[in-house]
Amino acid sequence: MPGPLIELIEGDTVHIEFENTLDVPVSLHVHGVDYEIGSDGTKLSKSHVEPGGTRTYTWRTHVPGRRKDGTWRAGSAGYWHYHDHVVGTDHGTGGIRKGLYGGVIVRRKGDILPDKTFTIVFNDMTINNKPGDQSPNFEATVGDRVEIVMITHGEFYHTFHIHGHRWADNRTGLLTGPDDPSRIVDNKITGPADSFGFQIVAGEHVGAGAWMYHCHVQSHSDMGMAGLLLVAKADGTIPGYEPHHPAEHAHQPAGGPR
Amino acid sequence: MPGPLIELIEGDTVHIEFENTLDVPVSLHVHGVDYEIGSDGTKLSKSHVEPGGTRTYTWRTHVPGRRKDGTWRAGSAGYWHYHDHVVGTDHGTGGIRKGLYGGVIVRRKGDILPDKTFTIVFNDMTINNKPGDQSPNFEATVGDRVEIVMITHGEFYHTFHIHGHRWADNRTGLLTGPDDPSRIVDNKITGPADSFGFQIVAGEHVGAGAWMYHCHVQSHSDMGMAGLLLVAKADGTIPGYEPHHPAEHAHQPAGGPR
Amino acid sequence: MPGPLIELIEGDTVHIEFENTLDVPVSLHVHGVDYEIGSDGTKLSKSHVEPGGTRTYTWRTHVPGRRKDGTWRAGSAGYWHYHDHVVGTDHGTGGIRKGLYGGVIVRRKGDILPDKTFTIVFNDMTINNKPGDQSPNFEATVGDRVEIVMITHGEFYHTFHIHGHRWADNRTGLLTGPDDPSRIVDNKITGPADSFGFQIVAGEHVGAGAWMYHCHVQSHSDMGMAGLLLVAKADGTIPGYEPHHPAEHAHQPAGGPR
Repeated sequence: MPGPLIELIEGDTVHIEFENTLDVPVSLHVHGVDYEIGSDGTKLSKSHVEPGGTRTYTWRTHVPGRRKDGTWRAGSAGYWHYHDHVVGTDHGTGGIRKGLYGGVIVRRKGDILPDKTFTIVFNDMTINNKPGDQSPNFEATVGDRVEIVMITHGEFYHTFHIHGHRWADNRTGLLTGPDDPSRIVDNKITGPADSFGFQIVAGEHVGAGAWMYHCHVQSHSDMGMAGLLLVAKADGTIPGYEPHHPAEHAHQPAGGPR
Repeated sequence: MPGPLIELIEGDTVHIEFENTLDVPVSLHVHGVDYEIGSDGTKLSKSHVEPGGTRTYTWRTHVPGRRKDGTWRAGSAGYWHYHDHVVGTDHGTGGIRKGLYGGVIVRRKGDILPDKTFTIVFNDMTINNKPGDQSPNFEATVGDRVEIVMITHGEFYHTFHIHGHRWADNRTGLLTGPDDPSRIVDNKITGPADSFGFQIVAGEHVGAGAWMYHCHVQSHSDMGMAGLLLVAKADGTIPGYEPHHPAEHAHQPAGGPR
Repeated sequence: MPGPLIELIEGDTVHIEFENTLDVPVSLHVHGVDYEIGSDGTKLSKSHVEPGGTRTYTWRTHVPGRRKDGTWRAGSAGYWHYHDHVVGTDHGTGGIRKGLYGGVIVRRKGDILPDKTFTIVFNDMTINNKPGDQSPNFEATVGDRVEIVMITHGEFYHTFHIHGHRWADNRTGLLTGPDDPSRIVDNKITGPADSFGFQIVAGEHVGAGAWMYHCHVQSHSDMGMAGLLLVAKADGTIPGYEPHHPAEHAHQPAGGPR
């Protein structure tokens, strides 16, 4: 968990062959992209899948443009997400709690691509459904263009904070230019089903280090909603970082993003 | 509930003859527009109304413009709201809980007008003070320009989500053009006295259907903070929609917006 | 409380000689500005200070500009804040609760300067760690350019509201011009470690008065999270204001900002 990150370019259509290998009905509901009511993934629209069954969900995306009345139609580009909408309750409370969620990125043609993308989901009091002593760390090298997809699920509000790095509180997390009035933030309040994303240049202006990211609601961070963005120098070292410092919590060794 | 929606154009002044037919002091406090302290609607400013009494509240609005010091003065345009500020407590907690609130729209000259406007108030664990099994549905036809005024009141934070439709997280909910950096969202965290609004084209890119809107805090939706945007085809039919599906909850039949 | 407001211009570097006169380890952690990992103020990075010890924390700031890859690098300008990150827990929960926090403003060269700046911190259920019956009031004269630095700390979400005045929900709180799509607000949801700021012209369009500011979560305002922006006429009078009205709560007389 989270499930696979799905990346699209505006204009793409994706057909997802969904097979339910569980013993309860389950569904696929998505935010942000275009789909007809038969791909809504709700019981109300009978677009869920019974145990053993299959269904094709179709998601479409579109570029921005003008409507006939002169108003501007937004494109599909954004940091979105998908989740179950039927397990446990008609709103998928049980499915989401167990981890039936993942990220969706729709890019605009010409968007700059990151070197690495990490998905961070604050789901109730966990990060990516890991208990607090196993919160995921993420690894990068100074200068890497790192993209974060941040999703919230469950019951609680949170504030997402990362040390030493900031982003623009707008569609891409990047300023469009010198006149972009977006607030620059390193901390953002977020609630269930909110999603946003941004790109940072690892260590820009601050250098290598074990940079914490965490929920800034004090009891949440104290209970373990905290991990590390490990930004190494080109030689692979991280100044002042001892992998087993008690403040870091035990975490699983892993190759690449966890 | 909510009370009557008040629509103004920047530059308008409105005088409201307020008569208190209740047996407790009550007031009218408004967000966003201009008023002198005598129209504040607070006990501190003695601008509330005793039982049987009357008072004229005056609200003014203004267009944007430059100040002498070169800074830009915002206009009054926005999605605002009014509420009691004295029943129960000096902050109107009792009055708001019972439904003494409503929406205010201040438009800018030239703003595109919607075909229909619906006001949705998340007030504690209700929508428009209806119990969860009677949450309001709203009706539109594919292609209708639908405006939503979304207001929160009470004690809790919520996340407002609508299926199959999105908006720009800015002043109007519409992009001003291709360079507008606003985030496009279909889910937004909101707390007491926050208000925002947006226009969507019903069924754009997704077609007709019974599209859920709901609070995405899982326990809140599970307890009934969910209704439907019923988007019909031109012939009046809604694909896959059975009005009395148990997942929809019972709701009152009604003509027009409820 | 709050601690001293630190004002910088983009490009400035500040070295802070930090002496720990407490009997527990303490630290200085800052949001928004640039610092190497040795100035992170966390136990993980060993950048805290033992009782009786000293440490120099270095903060740098930078102007906006283009990166080699063509993307736009945000400047450091913003409304930020600092706080302890080690007292009580590894996230400084005890230090923050007791008031170890303050505001930081980084200005962009050319930004218009305010006549007065007030810092308002919603810390758990207090404003600036004052109990509810001693919430701070702030004093201005009609026409003063008043800057508010609003910071949240602790455990709860809040909504910051001010009567009779509004601001732009963007980087500066001021519109950049007629095409700035930022939402104009007088109420904003905020969570722990969020910070924002804005400038208002006291009494603009509304005149003198005792204008309430408060958390709009009903139970929070009812428990005392409310104070006054006292906007006097040029002759020093405030229409309709009696300093000892019971609804105002007792508060300390004081000269200048409290």
